[in-house]
Amino acid sequence: MRILIDGMGGDNAPQAIVDGVLDAARRIPHTIGIVGREDEILQAFANSGKAPIPGKVAVIHASEVISNHDAPVRAVRTKKDSSIVKGLNMVKAGEADLFISAGNTGAIMAGGLFILGRIQGIDRPAITAIHPIMGGSPSFLVDAGANAECKPNNLLEFGIMGSIYMERVLGVENPRVGLVNNGTEETKGTSLTKVAYDLLSKSNLNFVGNVEARDLPAGICDVIVCDGFVGNVILKYMEGFAMSLFKLLKSKLTEGSRAKLGAALMKDKLMDLAQAMDYTEYGGAPILGVKGPVVKMHGSADAKAVRNTILKAIPFVENNVVETIQNSVLEIEEIVSSDD
Amino acid sequence: MRILIDGMGGDNAPQAIVDGVLDAARRIPHTIGIVGREDEILQAFANSGKAPIPGKVAVIHASEVISNHDAPVRAVRTKKDSSIVKGLNMVKAGEADLFISAGNTGAIMAGGLFILGRIQGIDRPAITAIHPIMGGSPSFLVDAGANAECKPNNLLEFGIMGSIYMERVLGVENPRVGLVNNGTEETKGTSLTKVAYDLLSKSNLNFVGNVEARDLPAGICDVIVCDGFVGNVILKYMEGFAMSLFKLLKSKLTEGSRAKLGAALMKDKLMDLAQAMDYTEYGGAPILGVKGPVVKMHGSADAKAVRNTILKAIPFVENNVVETIQNSVLEIEEIVSSDD
Repeated sequence: MRILIDGMGGDNAPQAIVDGVLDAARRIPHTIGIVGREDEILQAFANSGKAPIPGKVAVIHASEVISNHDAPVRAVRTKKDSSIVKGLNMVKAGEADLFISAGNTGAIMAGGLFILGRIQGIDRPAITAIHPIMGGSPSFLVDAGANAECKPNNLLEFGIMGSIYMERVLGVENPRVGLVNNGTEETKGTSLTKVAYDLLSKSNLNFVGNVEARDLPAGICDVIVCDGFVGNVILKYMEGFAMSLFKLLKSKLTEGSRAKLGAALMKDKLMDLAQAMDYTEYGGAPILGVKGPVVKMHGSADAKAVRNTILKAIPFVENNVVETIQNSVLEIEEIVSSDD
Repeated sequence: MRILIDGMGGDNAPQAIVDGVLDAARRIPHTIGIVGREDEILQAFANSGKAPIPGKVAVIHASEVISNHDAPVRAVRTKKDSSIVKGLNMVKAGEADLFISAGNTGAIMAGGLFILGRIQGIDRPAITAIHPIMGGSPSFLVDAGANAECKPNNLLEFGIMGSIYMERVLGVENPRVGLVNNGTEETKGTSLTKVAYDLLSKSNLNFVGNVEARDLPAGICDVIVCDGFVGNVILKYMEGFAMSLFKLLKSKLTEGSRAKLGAALMKDKLMDLAQAMDYTEYGGAPILGVKGPVVKMHGSADAKAVRNTILKAIPFVENNVVETIQNSVLEIEEIVSSDD
């Protein structure tokens, strides 16, 4: 397998990318290419006292960089020699089997659509996210923000694509698919969720019905289906809440000598707790519905997150997720047409 | 002022209602009526070794109860002698100045609409909620679930009504109004939020623009404007996340003798933290847009929450919130018509 990673994407690029790649390369038999500005990437190797490894870790030059400030569609159209555009073109040309990036999410999504194209029959590809569960295995959220406005068939597609990825890549058998709604009863919701409920019920998925946001943090389902606006709210709220809480916890627990001593005694446990919310454990999350394996990492990915993302993305290719989604399209069409 | 409270609503009724009323009555010059099944309410007085206080605390009999399992609209239409219907009718008849209930939210909303009626010019009354801010003063969320599907003018109404309540009842001068969106840029969002942004910008509100869910827990704005589907997701997610976290915190911090000792030393600080998330501090939240002051308490309200809700609701009446909303309708109409 030839894994390709964007050397320029994310807050800590290219250093974290290079260090994560070197760490991953020791553990897997596959080749890894780093695409981006050759001089900057080689400098990052040098900073770590390393160099590319012939036949194992290579650098592929791309002269341009799409930043987080670039307008996605325009950037993909104009920066033809950017790491994102070049990386996706290599996947399309069959020169790489998987593309990973911590760069501009919108540009990765737009590039996936323009360069790789939608899987025929998938109306709206989705950005996904790993939703950590405290004290349990993570859930998988589709859509995490690509499609702020959806039609019911899009939510069905999200459920099917999410279920396939959860089963084949994250190793959860017969994953429980839940539809985010404002009540658990079948009759609850908007014109969107009511019809989506009906479509998901007719599918072969392990559809557990409507789920309320209250039950998501405890892991009520494995695949969380919602439109991209709601998905964005859930993920960002979680991040913001955890951040506020740890900040307050830290200030409270260091007020006064009694609490300070207490905090010192509990340090290991508090670290466990922080780790339970640590996204870097889980690696990245895929763009689903485009014709090729593409994985998005968090912009703040460090070397450990880069390594984990590479290692955990391998079954995305090995277990033929893209082909399996392609094969599910007929089922989607049948369900949607039976509902008309 | 004649305050009226539903004696039958909530998980701890009527005992928590009676105890909370007695506690509040000692602190304010106003009369408080408790509406509901007289025998059950008098039994609750007896349980606490107390009795109604002539001229101060009275019981008004209502023979029926709307439970949380009742379908709201049907319940309001058929249970004419329920505490909710009777309470709202008394407000309409001018026999009470304020109605408070911890009962079936949908029924309180439906009853508010059918019995009191919408304020003319307010298209969609809203359920609101107090959104706690760790280490800061709370935000106020409109809509918390009444209107899962909204039009842009509804979001403008939510902003205006929320701002008036925040200023007049919660005492925040010139409250910052934020629109929940999937990015802070003006161009971000759905067909709903883009037009709502435009309307809110044209208002006299202290509109701080789009806010991301990530920044809500830190208190980026005083009035959080969103449709009822998103509002429901935010509030329920917050509840669920806090619950999961405290559960995990508790189990982690009592693993092993070292951590147990540490936890004992930090007990006060951990209690402070839990209190920072405690909704009972803040009392209830109003239904806004109906022709009369109606306040909804959390279903799990205890005596302390009942007392706080009564005390904190007084400015809702004293500061003429309903009339002020009514007077703002002209502004809403001008903004909306200028946008057509």
